[in-house]
Amino acid sequence: MRDDNCIFCKIANGDIPSATIYEDKDFRVILDLGPASKGHALILPKPHFKDLCDADPEIMAKIMPLAGKLGKAMKTGLGASGFNVVQNNGASAGQTVYHLHVHVIPRYEGGPKIVVWTPGKEEVAELEKTAERIKKQL
Amino acid sequence: MRDDNCIFCKIANGDIPSATIYEDKDFRVILDLGPASKGHALILPKPHFKDLCDADPEIMAKIMPLAGKLGKAMKTGLGASGFNVVQNNGASAGQTVYHLHVHVIPRYEGGPKIVVWTPGKEEVAELEKTAERIKKQL
Repeated sequence: MRDDNCIFCKIANGDIPSATIYEDKDFRVILDLGPASKGHALILPKPHFKDLCDADPEIMAKIMPLAGKLGKAMKTGLGASGFNVVQNNGASAGQTVYHLHVHVIPRYEGGPKIVVWTPGKEEVAELEKTAERIKKQL
Repeated sequence: MRDDNCIFCKIANGDIPSATIYEDKDFRVILDLGPASKGHALILPKPHFKDLCDADPEIMAKIMPLAGKLGKAMKTGLGASGFNVVQNNGASAGQTVYHLHVHVIPRYEGGPKIVVWTPGKEEVAELEKTAERIKKQL
């Protein structure tokens, strides 16, 4: 349940100090040392899960409600006008620490974009084929 | 619980056809018509919630476990090597449709970055002050 070589295990379990916003039996929420914006928070589960494919669904169930509470508190406490919830799985998705974590990033009017893509264009027939390939695995 | 002027209400509830990957009483998961990558999915709750501040925590609890299942299926079904889970709240965060939705975006080796920020640098004392301002609102 814990990996002694994992820095997020050490932070989540309080062996390394952090600017903690919230803590309960399953999570510690800290402020990121290299924030995308003022108040950028990381939700860290206390048990070690590499990513969302590897994680306990019962603990994962608590994340979105918690992210909502944090986002509301960023609006009232910091004057944010919005927030992003971002969770990356795998190097190709930008994951750099292999202890599952969820970014809650407050956004302010006029701030830079941080989630950006160029929308592709796919024909409905092609979309349906892709949908089938995913559905078969569910 | 439903907004007759909302396109995602119509899609989630089946009034407008979509490439559907998954459906249950709370959600429809569809493929995005303007995908960031092949298999880019949107988790749409059937009830209308503007964003995560406005949403039913019981329904929100089901999102991360569902995103994990979808990500796994994208890896085995489409050969993705990772995936991003992204949920935007408010115009400053890039939200464009005001019916809460969660992007699950498969990632492939060598694909472009889609979540990008320049890490800031904040002194620990300043982080602690910011943490206090959020904590007070929780």
